[in-house]
Amino acid sequence: MRFRNTRQLTESLLGHLSEADATVQSMEDASPAKWHAAHTTWFWETFLLRDFVPDYTLFDEQFPFLFNSYYESEGERIARDNRGLMTRPTLAEVMNWRAHVNEAMDRLLDDPANADLIALGIAHEQQHIELLLTDIKHAFCKNPIGPSMWDAQPARSSVQGNGWLAHPGGIARVGHQSDGFAFDNEGPVHRVLLEPFALARRLVTNGEWAQFIADGGYKDHRLWLSDGWAWINRRNITAPLYWRDGKHFTHCGWQERDPDAPVAHISYYEADAFASWAGARLPTEFEWEAIARGQDSPGFCAAAGNQLDPDGNPAQPPLPMGTEELYGDVWQFTRSTYLPYPRFVPAAGAVGEYNGKFMAGQWVLKGASCATVRGHSRASYRNFFYPQQRWQFTGLRLAKDL
Amino acid sequence: MRFRNTRQLTESLLGHLSEADATVQSMEDASPAKWHAAHTTWFWETFLLRDFVPDYTLFDEQFPFLFNSYYESEGERIARDNRGLMTRPTLAEVMNWRAHVNEAMDRLLDDPANADLIALGIAHEQQHIELLLTDIKHAFCKNPIGPSMWDAQPARSSVQGNGWLAHPGGIARVGHQSDGFAFDNEGPVHRVLLEPFALARRLVTNGEWAQFIADGGYKDHRLWLSDGWAWINRRNITAPLYWRDGKHFTHCGWQERDPDAPVAHISYYEADAFASWAGARLPTEFEWEAIARGQDSPGFCAAAGNQLDPDGNPAQPPLPMGTEELYGDVWQFTRSTYLPYPRFVPAAGAVGEYNGKFMAGQWVLKGASCATVRGHSRASYRNFFYPQQRWQFTGLRLAKDL
Amino acid sequence: MRFRNTRQLTESLLGHLSEADATVQSMEDASPAKWHAAHTTWFWETFLLRDFVPDYTLFDEQFPFLFNSYYESEGERIARDNRGLMTRPTLAEVMNWRAHVNEAMDRLLDDPANADLIALGIAHEQQHIELLLTDIKHAFCKNPIGPSMWDAQPARSSVQGNGWLAHPGGIARVGHQSDGFAFDNEGPVHRVLLEPFALARRLVTNGEWAQFIADGGYKDHRLWLSDGWAWINRRNITAPLYWRDGKHFTHCGWQERDPDAPVAHISYYEADAFASWAGARLPTEFEWEAIARGQDSPGFCAAAGNQLDPDGNPAQPPLPMGTEELYGDVWQFTRSTYLPYPRFVPAAGAVGEYNGKFMAGQWVLKGASCATVRGHSRASYRNFFYPQQRWQFTGLRLAKDL
Amino acid sequence: MRFRNTRQLTESLLGHLSEADATVQSMEDASPAKWHAAHTTWFWETFLLRDFVPDYTLFDEQFPFLFNSYYESEGERIARDNRGLMTRPTLAEVMNWRAHVNEAMDRLLDDPANADLIALGIAHEQQHIELLLTDIKHAFCKNPIGPSMWDAQPARSSVQGNGWLAHPGGIARVGHQSDGFAFDNEGPVHRVLLEPFALARRLVTNGEWAQFIADGGYKDHRLWLSDGWAWINRRNITAPLYWRDGKHFTHCGWQERDPDAPVAHISYYEADAFASWAGARLPTEFEWEAIARGQDSPGFCAAAGNQLDPDGNPAQPPLPMGTEELYGDVWQFTRSTYLPYPRFVPAAGAVGEYNGKFMAGQWVLKGASCATVRGHSRASYRNFFYPQQRWQFTGLRLAKDL
Repeated sequence: MRFRNTRQLTESLLGHLSEADATVQSMEDASPAKWHAAHTTWFWETFLLRDFVPDYTLFDEQFPFLFNSYYESEGERIARDNRGLMTRPTLAEVMNWRAHVNEAMDRLLDDPANADLIALGIAHEQQHIELLLTDIKHAFCKNPIGPSMWDAQPARSSVQGNGWLAHPGGIARVGHQSDGFAFDNEGPVHRVLLEPFALARRLVTNGEWAQFIADGGYKDHRLWLSDGWAWINRRNITAPLYWRDGKHFTHCGWQERDPDAPVAHISYYEADAFASWAGARLPTEFEWEAIARGQDSPGFCAAAGNQLDPDGNPAQPPLPMGTEELYGDVWQFTRSTYLPYPRFVPAAGAVGEYNGKFMAGQWVLKGASCATVRGHSRASYRNFFYPQQRWQFTGLRLAKDL
Repeated sequence: MRFRNTRQLTESLLGHLSEADATVQSMEDASPAKWHAAHTTWFWETFLLRDFVPDYTLFDEQFPFLFNSYYESEGERIARDNRGLMTRPTLAEVMNWRAHVNEAMDRLLDDPANADLIALGIAHEQQHIELLLTDIKHAFCKNPIGPSMWDAQPARSSVQGNGWLAHPGGIARVGHQSDGFAFDNEGPVHRVLLEPFALARRLVTNGEWAQFIADGGYKDHRLWLSDGWAWINRRNITAPLYWRDGKHFTHCGWQERDPDAPVAHISYYEADAFASWAGARLPTEFEWEAIARGQDSPGFCAAAGNQLDPDGNPAQPPLPMGTEELYGDVWQFTRSTYLPYPRFVPAAGAVGEYNGKFMAGQWVLKGASCATVRGHSRASYRNFFYPQQRWQFTGLRLAKDL
Repeated sequence: MRFRNTRQLTESLLGHLSEADATVQSMEDASPAKWHAAHTTWFWETFLLRDFVPDYTLFDEQFPFLFNSYYESEGERIARDNRGLMTRPTLAEVMNWRAHVNEAMDRLLDDPANADLIALGIAHEQQHIELLLTDIKHAFCKNPIGPSMWDAQPARSSVQGNGWLAHPGGIARVGHQSDGFAFDNEGPVHRVLLEPFALARRLVTNGEWAQFIADGGYKDHRLWLSDGWAWINRRNITAPLYWRDGKHFTHCGWQERDPDAPVAHISYYEADAFASWAGARLPTEFEWEAIARGQDSPGFCAAAGNQLDPDGNPAQPPLPMGTEELYGDVWQFTRSTYLPYPRFVPAAGAVGEYNGKFMAGQWVLKGASCATVRGHSRASYRNFFYPQQRWQFTGLRLAKDL
Repeated sequence: MRFRNTRQLTESLLGHLSEADATVQSMEDASPAKWHAAHTTWFWETFLLRDFVPDYTLFDEQFPFLFNSYYESEGERIARDNRGLMTRPTLAEVMNWRAHVNEAMDRLLDDPANADLIALGIAHEQQHIELLLTDIKHAFCKNPIGPSMWDAQPARSSVQGNGWLAHPGGIARVGHQSDGFAFDNEGPVHRVLLEPFALARRLVTNGEWAQFIADGGYKDHRLWLSDGWAWINRRNITAPLYWRDGKHFTHCGWQERDPDAPVAHISYYEADAFASWAGARLPTEFEWEAIARGQDSPGFCAAAGNQLDPDGNPAQPPLPMGTEELYGDVWQFTRSTYLPYPRFVPAAGAVGEYNGKFMAGQWVLKGASCATVRGHSRASYRNFFYPQQRWQFTGLRLAKDL
């Protein structure tokens, strides 16, 4: 059921796009929507069907080369920045491949021996659903006419309460600790020592960011990390990605910015500078997780908040609106770099390339965004990006020492 | 009639492409097929309809910004390397625009006052037809599965005769000198002094180029211009563009190379090195024109040879095959740089940007290629490219001193 | 006394160089020797003399612009990659400036109110002494004739014992915790929770690295971080910097490599890949510090090991040789990124730019190198570099879980 | 005598520089002064001493590798942009080499069999004297303190007369046609057909260029070649190189600009744009040569005008001042690209690389500059540079059609 809903959700999103929309690639970090539809299918074929269906034959001999992403163990693949030139196979051919694989998967779904890999494949496709949404947003924004993927007008968000969630510090257990699925990078579970701190009850908003700009935040070197200062000056960056005058670019085209909605599409450098300006700091990934787990109290629900509905047919475009929840709207930068936990060992085989080899130069983000499929995230979940990347729904929640 | 045939030819070529094919851009030098279809339409709207149809309103207010190419006088335009991100307007919308403009042009076609601009617009669209064909070839070749635009198998070319066309030298009249249409860069007609020389009867072939390679032509610095030597070493160039093993990429996908067919897709640097290896040289543009005009004898027919049929529906894909004619198969590099003729003055207004401002750093090519619309070329025609460019059907014909 | 010895040491090293040697810059990361001599002098003039000597006048009005490094608060400065074009002021003029500042400093040295800034200035100049040595090594190595800075033949190192230093884990106090000088980035002192682990008794050697290479270490993607794999392939890296055939480049020119000496001039990416190949890992900065502090036992002496003698006139060139000590030979990569400690606040004023703003994208190294002035380092010392940098004396010591 | 004077002139110029000045390289186009001193010596050793002195042994086995410039036939050499890192061999060692070669050359100077190669070697060293002067000027200008090579204050230039030198057109004999020395690229002598034209009596001045700027010359796309427009916008170019406020940089540091002196340090793109603005054009190389030869009248003297005195000890720094002569002050851009003359064949052997292989992408300049050794130039002389280069003393003289 979750398999079919996830597959259906990918296909439903493609229904909002023309074949041309689904083909283009607006930068090396982004991939075409058609590529996401194909690569997720490659994943099922490569790691499930090929290994566990004895008589399975590849749908097309060339597709493994065309749609492998970065798995060195799975052989050669096309250069990442050439993904946008693959006008063939056509979108219809890719959809046929999807149907073929969906059908073949039917035989494997009920065998408990495959449960772990199937859970991995679903999580993988959910990640690509989010990327599909952020990648097409980037491509549309580069188009001077600013196309819309949805016609719906965005709803107005409500003002959120202020305040802080305090934590007394001490030893906390972090990392994946339930029976459910988790990526290898979320473990092993281990203990960390926390100092007393507090985490903001709500995300930083567009309105607060506008104050930061008005106060000269992008012009005061004292607020910035050296690499960040070089980056904003080299790239002439003076606002979040997708901001222009009083508007910002959304999946519904250019729209008025809601000052009460959470700010999105900022880099780590900008998040860090804002926190300095606000006299606060970013939380560590462990502080965030400790709050999320609620320690000895109930904690927050990972599936609450403003996220993407998993029912296979999203009625609403993703847009940060603001909720009382910890998970949703935007991924939240931490001041923790993406490094292995003590005694971490990557999974065996090609899927071991999923996470471990990226543990250099990136920062951990916690929570979930409005483009994250509901149910995908959890307290131990570690999203990660480079400090200058901001085409994801990235935002921040302040922390402070107590 | 020529207007409608030319417009129809563009549209007929688009019929071989999916919307995705027509949208992508494989390098900054190339443009999407849809962009060619739109930009040529922009040309008619901008330089004819807007100026000469009193009540004409733009089909879409944003299209002038989207589809201006390089006319500074016509205002801002999108960055050249972003042309491939315009998934909207859709191909259907562009085709509607074409129909709208075709219909509006009907009113202007018969007025002799517009004849010059109409001739220019037809020549302009013919140039973009050739570019559309070479640009999509480049994009398809970057696709690992090597798609075909036509299914037809290429015919086998016949062996051409050897020998030289001798010229006694003396004063020759060059430049446009008839009543027909010509670009401003083809005039004024003027006299040049030629030394006795001879021009090869046929184009250099794939087979001869293979000998050049086998003889170490790409490894012998003595054959190369300094800039060319740096270029082939920096880019690891060891063969013409589109060569791989015994095959080459065509509009019908990867095909066996015919050793008797003219070599194509070489740069000026390579043409010059080959001529040195062969103990010959490239002709000047004036030597070529003098032979083409036949001096006191009949001369060659500019509309003969292997070119693209102008009837609005090409049955055959463009492919160099070899003929006895001077015009066709491949554009022929000369050793003349693209500079203004004595007393040259660019046309007034924005169309003056058509040619004159490009007179720096490029080389003149003469003749016509298999992708040139028959009737487009003439003895005074000056095609021009940078010395490292080779995605056009470019080849060479040797010359020598007498 | 330490002030004068440190200043004298800088000047003594310059005595091994011609004016031309002292002027050139071999890459943006490196600076000219003359620039180091001048910039350290700028530091004393800017942060001590100008502020605390009432009647002090600048030696030269242009020098603050010429010799500021990266202090935004101190105003404009020349582009970093132009430092090597400053043939004027001459080396003699810079030496005169040094003498002038040395004399002026005499008045401040005995006032306890200045002790902290003086200690900072000495530590600063010691850091630049190390950079001067590694920068000139880089410049000399780019010279095809491979000049020597010292004639002395390097001594043969002795084989070091194997084995591991075990640690039971638990809560450790880390960060600066004595009364002596420390940089702001070494504090505040705080507690961390360690799992049981062991640290190798000795550094990885040239001989072991040669085995790593022979075993295909640079060709096996499974050993590498993704960014590291891209880096070695893009740059064609197959060995440590300065290795060529059986030799390596030293301050005494090209010399045979001693297989028992510690390997040097490796990047973080290489250190991490080697550790994976060896079935081990890199230590965290806290593990290293816990071993160095010896917990409840005596611990190691930070001033022992193969380091640069501080007496103002080094008799020997810096060269990793191998000792039983924890500090010396090469800086040791940790798997910790360079981030602020809990409750870290940068120092007030311009000197606050010294450390905090670099806390992004870099890794912590512990210990000391053969080019570190003896007495400069301590258990809490945090050196830091980007993961691809390797022109410093960088090496590694393995760790493993217990 | 000319040999000794030329050698002495190189050495005299070095006497104005410190060893550091003589070592650095400010861009890839420029070379260190010490390198010029060494490379010219390499030329004598390689093409004369090694071939014609039976018992000659190389002064140093490594120098051929270090000081070859671009002669592929003479083997490997260091990367061009690494020339500035050769702090060793020292300047003193290079001067010793020069003395050694000067002495060895004594045996060859009087043998008429060597006259051609000796004339070539002298011309070669004269070219490097000019490059030494323009290269060090560039390096000094990049130094914020703007050092001087000479203390002398530049003299004030006198206002020059206006007017035009008319030419009736017709067939002109161009190319080298006397018994004296000439480079291979100046021949063979041949005939060209000229239309009636006129050449300005004087060079364009600083004052006229200031008017061009004030009139918006750098902001009007209609004046510029497309490549030039892209170049000035990409590089933010709004004035000649070395202009800042009312001053310009000279070998005597920053000085007031004389409005009556010829403008210098402009690119081809700028020269072409200025000519368009002035309603004129640049002359062809043949028009310039026809005027210089005076047709049936006496013509101009190539050794007159403001040039560098060849007596081995220049008293004055090079500075454009304005004269009535055709040769001097600045090299004059033509609208001719640097291409081979009819029947041109490069000289045999390695010296054949001197000129022919550079015949792509460059423009011909005629005349001589204030940094050209008097006697070096002649009517057929063809200097050549890329269209964006402007660190030479480059200027312009207008032409127009009659």
